Amino acid sequence: MEHKVNYAAEEIEQMLTAKRYRELKSIFSSMEPADIAQIFEDIPEEQLPLLYRILPKDMAAEVFVEMDGDEQELLISAFSDRELKEVLDEMYLDDAVDIIEEMPASVVKRILMQADPETRRQINEILKYPDDSAGSIMTIEYVSLKADMTVEAAFTRIRRTGEDKETIYTCYVTDKDRHLIGVVSVRTLLLADPDDLIGSIMEKNVTYVTTLEDKEQVAQQFNRYDYLALPVVDQEKRLVGIVTVDDAMDVLQEENTEDIEMMAAITPTDKPYMKTGIFETWKKRIPWLLILMISATFTGAIITHYEDALGTYVVLTAFIPMLMNTGGNAGSQSSVSIIRGMSLGEIEYSDTPKIILKEILVALACGLTLAAANFVKMMLIDHVSSTIAFVVSATLVVSVLAAKVIGCTLPILAKRVGFDPAVMASPFITTIVDAISLMVYFRIATMVLPI
Amino acid sequence: MEHKVNYAAEEIEQMLTAKRYRELKSIFSSMEPADIAQIFEDIPEEQLPLLYRILPKDMAAEVFVEMDGDEQELLISAFSDRELKEVLDEMYLDDAVDIIEEMPASVVKRILMQADPETRRQINEILKYPDDSAGSIMTIEYVSLKADMTVEAAFTRIRRTGEDKETIYTCYVTDKDRHLIGVVSVRTLLLADPDDLIGSIMEKNVTYVTTLEDKEQVAQQFNRYDYLALPVVDQEKRLVGIVTVDDAMDVLQEENTEDIEMMAAITPTDKPYMKTGIFETWKKRIPWLLILMISATFTGAIITHYEDALGTYVVLTAFIPMLMNTGGNAGSQSSVSIIRGMSLGEIEYSDTPKIILKEILVALACGLTLAAANFVKMMLIDHVSSTIAFVVSATLVVSVLAAKVIGCTLPILAKRVGFDPAVMASPFITTIVDAISLMVYFRIATMVLPI
Repeated sequence: MEHKVNYAAEEIEQMLTAKRYRELKSIFSSMEPADIAQIFEDIPEEQLPLLYRILPKDMAAEVFVEMDGDEQELLISAFSDRELKEVLDEMYLDDAVDIIEEMPASVVKRILMQADPETRRQINEILKYPDDSAGSIMTIEYVSLKADMTVEAAFTRIRRTGEDKETIYTCYVTDKDRHLIGVVSVRTLLLADPDDLIGSIMEKNVTYVTTLEDKEQVAQQFNRYDYLALPVVDQEKRLVGIVTVDDAMDVLQEENTEDIEMMAAITPTDKPYMKTGIFETWKKRIPWLLILMISATFTGAIITHYEDALGTYVVLTAFIPMLMNTGGNAGSQSSVSIIRGMSLGEIEYSDTPKIILKEILVALACGLTLAAANFVKMMLIDHVSSTIAFVVSATLVVSVLAAKVIGCTLPILAKRVGFDPAVMASPFITTIVDAISLMVYFRIATMVLPI
Repeated sequence: MEHKVNYAAEEIEQMLTAKRYRELKSIFSSMEPADIAQIFEDIPEEQLPLLYRILPKDMAAEVFVEMDGDEQELLISAFSDRELKEVLDEMYLDDAVDIIEEMPASVVKRILMQADPETRRQINEILKYPDDSAGSIMTIEYVSLKADMTVEAAFTRIRRTGEDKETIYTCYVTDKDRHLIGVVSVRTLLLADPDDLIGSIMEKNVTYVTTLEDKEQVAQQFNRYDYLALPVVDQEKRLVGIVTVDDAMDVLQEENTEDIEMMAAITPTDKPYMKTGIFETWKKRIPWLLILMISATFTGAIITHYEDALGTYVVLTAFIPMLMNTGGNAGSQSSVSIIRGMSLGEIEYSDTPKIILKEILVALACGLTLAAANFVKMMLIDHVSSTIAFVVSATLVVSVLAAKVIGCTLPILAKRVGFDPAVMASPFITTIVDAISLMVYFRIATMVLPI
């Protein structure tokens, strides 16, 4: 892969110390903003403002947007009011809002004071939308056209106003009350006759989302329909903004990370692993470890209850870890399949009966295979009596069955009552399945063995 | 959310039976191809060809592309040669290749026979690239310009050839030997003067990828740099195709699903859960369950080895499940964090020492918290002796430490030796950590207790 030329933070730092500013500027102008921002993270704090001021003017805002909250805050405090205003003016509004959401109140106040009144009003407007809504990720900088314009007039308008718009490739057509009535792509415009009316070439069947819609669902639509942008309307169907594909992609990646973290019993955050401190990491992990540890009291109680049986047949203890792990693994296979299917919109609540039936059949197939393999293994390798081998193998079948049924239903139920299904992944399923496996194990053992 | 009007499969089927073809056609033309394809999946097989022929001509190929392999195969066998040719001509080449990759040999032969010689050559070209390479997801339908063209001439060319291109918004500039020398967006073209030369307004620093590059890394670049398209070049830096953002998004979602499935010990496939049969689901799950079950033989052996200790202190058995689960959970927290960080490109091999140090500190913090909570709980609720409580709590600290260190290093090592780090997630970590926890448990117990 060929990136635009990339440099290590050390090289940049050396050039800075050697005051090779002109060289630095030309290096930066050949790089991607995201790569420059990454270098900035590894530069000592006190050199950051100086380095930032070397950036070519037209890139400064883009680099700023790509930086981490900590560095942004540091730079803002180093900025003069005029510098702050310049950066703000160059930024797309949705990026400005993202930054403001991360900053402490005093910094927010300073930013809002430097923004012009109209921008301030618009920022405040977007800040009102809930964190997980389409409104919170939209930008208000889009191209809007009127139905009675000609294609030529549309191009004139795009040329005049396009510079500041996040995308110009999808243009939205509104009536005099700002209601969304159509959409037309620059591709269509280019292939049309200059005298054609927008109203006659626009697509009238517009897919749109509303400001309060869940941003994950909005992002999924980009994936499903291959859109480059989607219009966002208010309750009265007035166009208020657009969501672009790059923001949708960010949302999808964030939601994926969130799902994966929840499945591993970690409280999700947006912060990358390497940026999260020891205390913060501890805070994300310890509550779940504690809850799961305490809930294992049940398994302990079950074992204690069957202490006598275990005293007589100590050999039974040897298979407890295997039984519990197999149950846990079988359960998490099912729960993770269902959770992912729901995330991708492939599984609906109405599929529940079909899913349960399928999981029962798969569980029986898996359970019987495992039981057979285990029986043979216990007889040949562990040299236990066939009765003990039978007890363990029978438990395997029942606990895989229980694990898979619980594994597939809990996430669906969680979603039904409004929770994120991902919390119902492996760790919780394991805890429940452990208890069931043990009970089944001892029940079968006490029935079959002379205890 | 407002989709374009949506209908249930049953309604469509009724209209079809009632021969309301005209009505169906107008309904279809107001819908998204992806939604129509979904309806087609729920229509009885024998009605599929008829229904497909009702589709408006300009949508037929788009709907075909969105359908499942099974339905595509069914339709192809129902198509006349002329119909097959029509669909192929309307399809983008990368979509045609995707379909061909799923079809049995006899169908592939028929498809290739209907394609014109040039298309056939191009399809064969793309089919040669490995499944996980940029070449396999690229399209060769892009707009290419020359440096000595004027902006006006460029627009003429875009208008003339743009209809068949997957994207027209990013145009690539090549020299006479097809070497990639620049890139220019339609946005830049629109804002430029009609007489400007492409060579003077194009961006010369082009980020590109090569045909054999890993497609996941290519997709990550879209996410990082917010591209709409990326050029793909061969070993001689000649432009051979482009990858568009919609395909990149598909790759990211597929890779995410793959990671999540591997983390849950499932063999990954592209097929959605609801489309996978019982036998197939069993096949995806059983190998891992078997391997993990057999590997639990170690834990069994450890317990058997300490049978005497357990015979004397049966109470020790009661805490085995809790110890093993806590270790497993602690380990999977670490491994999943690292695996995700590597997937997102946030973690590099060179970060290993930093990661291990961090995980040791977090592990100590978590382990001590858990040990303290557990000690109090065992004294107050389980009413065990303080010696037993000490043995269990001390084991907790050691096994959380071992779990987190193993959990963070194994995925890094796996990647280092060329495996997918996601296989080193919870289930494998759990199996290893279980064995370590048990050994530590019995070691401490035999040291502290009079056994």
